[in-house]
Amino acid sequence: MTTAANPQMPPRLLMGPGPINAHPRVLQAMSMQLVGQFDPSMTAAMNETMALYRDVFRTDNEHTLLVDGTSRAGIEAALVSLLEPGDRVLVPVFGRFGHLLVEIAERCGAEVHTVEVPWGEVVPDDAVEDAVRRVRPRLVAAVQGDTSTTMCQPLAGIGEICRREGVLLYVDATASLGGNPFETDAWGIDVASAGLQKCLGGPSGSAPITLGPRAVEVIEGRKHVEAGLRTDDDRSRGTRIASNYLDLAQVMDYWGQRRLNHHTEATTMLYGARACAQVLLDEGLEASIERHRLHGAAMLEGVRGLGLEVFGDVEHKMTNVVAVHIPDGVDGDAARTAMLEDFGIEIGTSFGPLHGRVWRIGTMGWNARRDAVLTTLAALEAVLRAAGVPVTAGGGTGAAREVYA
Amino acid sequence: MTTAANPQMPPRLLMGPGPINAHPRVLQAMSMQLVGQFDPSMTAAMNETMALYRDVFRTDNEHTLLVDGTSRAGIEAALVSLLEPGDRVLVPVFGRFGHLLVEIAERCGAEVHTVEVPWGEVVPDDAVEDAVRRVRPRLVAAVQGDTSTTMCQPLAGIGEICRREGVLLYVDATASLGGNPFETDAWGIDVASAGLQKCLGGPSGSAPITLGPRAVEVIEGRKHVEAGLRTDDDRSRGTRIASNYLDLAQVMDYWGQRRLNHHTEATTMLYGARACAQVLLDEGLEASIERHRLHGAAMLEGVRGLGLEVFGDVEHKMTNVVAVHIPDGVDGDAARTAMLEDFGIEIGTSFGPLHGRVWRIGTMGWNARRDAVLTTLAALEAVLRAAGVPVTAGGGTGAAREVYA
Repeated sequence: MTTAANPQMPPRLLMGPGPINAHPRVLQAMSMQLVGQFDPSMTAAMNETMALYRDVFRTDNEHTLLVDGTSRAGIEAALVSLLEPGDRVLVPVFGRFGHLLVEIAERCGAEVHTVEVPWGEVVPDDAVEDAVRRVRPRLVAAVQGDTSTTMCQPLAGIGEICRREGVLLYVDATASLGGNPFETDAWGIDVASAGLQKCLGGPSGSAPITLGPRAVEVIEGRKHVEAGLRTDDDRSRGTRIASNYLDLAQVMDYWGQRRLNHHTEATTMLYGARACAQVLLDEGLEASIERHRLHGAAMLEGVRGLGLEVFGDVEHKMTNVVAVHIPDGVDGDAARTAMLEDFGIEIGTSFGPLHGRVWRIGTMGWNARRDAVLTTLAALEAVLRAAGVPVTAGGGTGAAREVYA
Repeated sequence: MTTAANPQMPPRLLMGPGPINAHPRVLQAMSMQLVGQFDPSMTAAMNETMALYRDVFRTDNEHTLLVDGTSRAGIEAALVSLLEPGDRVLVPVFGRFGHLLVEIAERCGAEVHTVEVPWGEVVPDDAVEDAVRRVRPRLVAAVQGDTSTTMCQPLAGIGEICRREGVLLYVDATASLGGNPFETDAWGIDVASAGLQKCLGGPSGSAPITLGPRAVEVIEGRKHVEAGLRTDDDRSRGTRIASNYLDLAQVMDYWGQRRLNHHTEATTMLYGARACAQVLLDEGLEASIERHRLHGAAMLEGVRGLGLEVFGDVEHKMTNVVAVHIPDGVDGDAARTAMLEDFGIEIGTSFGPLHGRVWRIGTMGWNARRDAVLTTLAALEAVLRAAGVPVTAGGGTGAAREVYA
């Protein structure tokens, strides 16, 4: 057997829109040795993980489990399991990840309608309500926090509209869960999914998901389509789920009381996902949200203290990420490279209409910390000064310190 | 921040058909801190991983990469990206995982034909050839090693048939890769996928996959179907790939020179997958296969030395797993429980027509070791004796020692 060492990765402080540095306890959990798929200790770990994520998602949903893939796998599992070809879907779009929901729903064969607002805003409830009444969708699919714009879509009103109009509601809470208020049951959300790599302080690769009774009924109702029935009229209800890997009917049977065999559990990711929830709940969900609020506010005031202009409707911003306009005359990518090469700090670029216009700076998960915020602001000050931007010495860290005072 | 400890899992020696214990170096790699998705060190790690898996798969294929999910995600990525609704597929079925290929191909909308043999046998080349000429499939999808029966399907002949007949060939090498000869290029295989949790000595959750030029051409040819084109006649060529997450056209663009954004990389699984290949190639692929052959032979002779009868066509058995008939009068599940509870050793149950009839015992990855083989045989002797089976004292370990002598 080899005893050669693993190649080491460089030390980085990841202050972009995610992924972020994983909490050390999560990394420790992911170095634990494996047990078998149906070992009693594995069953206990799965049940414990389900219970922990019920608390994280604020739900009593029995079917609260992990999809073995990145947050995008969780999104696709929800949509491919809920949607049948020809179903109408309404997507409130306020950034890149709304467009992703559109694309995935289209690939499921759905008829997708959108209600869009400019980047930097959120979608008003009445616009959603009008669209629901016009389109009569089977499902509203919404993003809570879209890192592309930093906006945090209010969901309580959309939940009310969906309940009143008899429409299913799916929410992608990847970027926001654990660092912003999220109420699966109180807001009437039928399915919500997330990832570990944002406020949950873990690596990408596991997608926590929760399914309420209305969603479970829809998904279970598709199970009667047996193997070999390839003659289905694919415009009818009861079509077979087009994926095996992301078939939530099977995944629920695997995680549930019956514990039927499906895929081979990604045990190391399960250990990581469990540790993420344990770290979060040991701190307390409210305390975690408050910590994200505090350090997000410090970063916001800090970048303003550096003279930078913040993008978008700050009243509706996620706690855990801020987008700042790149000052005139500054090469945004060169500045990011200087942050990385000279300080080991990553901040984010941006996409679509914001490409080249803003940097995105995150304060989330384990990195929602005072030292991480102040270090990032100090480094950014140095980089801006070197780029010729007139910066008040200590303007960023000073403004952040006032938030902490 | 919490400093509470992670719950520990019990120590287990996993000698079933997989998952098995991960190599310590792999676990160490998976506790490394993260870097950003587009960090130069991440790009280097991805390129290195691609190069390593080219050697593991024995291929020059540029597009050799990881799908972020379990081995089943790799299978589905291959089939959903290659197959269009109405395509004819031929699946040689000799166990449970052949049936899985059938099911996934059906969910892709393919017209699936099979050529089946009884469990414990492999499919003869001429049966495949006859079926290919009769069915004229677009794709032959075959399993190499099916752990449900322990059989290892010969593939060189099937590759020749596919090349001669102009048919694409996909192979699921999950259970066999690294412990049995596998030749992507020499055997004319267009796409092969695997997992880490068998002979590669890692945890489930990452699916190495390699795509040859004929497959790449098919998949790239589907990219022109742009978002929003929902009016395609889905019996025609050039339909949109039904999945976003498992769309190998996008995944190739993400891993390739263009490095276009797709999902957020499951970095910890990438570290693990890279370490698996490094461990394997540090030992040497030939040496690893020989090690699996040696310890598999020792286990085979060992169980025979205990008086157990081996299931199936031993000439066509995988090196890394053996199925043994449960002796008359022995409660198979009770014996497995005794192995686990009294000795911390997991051996496997079985499925389908073999359920309750055989145990499956693996010697793979890190656990293809002399001490693991002898310990398992000693424990099994004790459990059989306690169950009232007449066993020659030291019959198992003695026979295994002779293989090692």
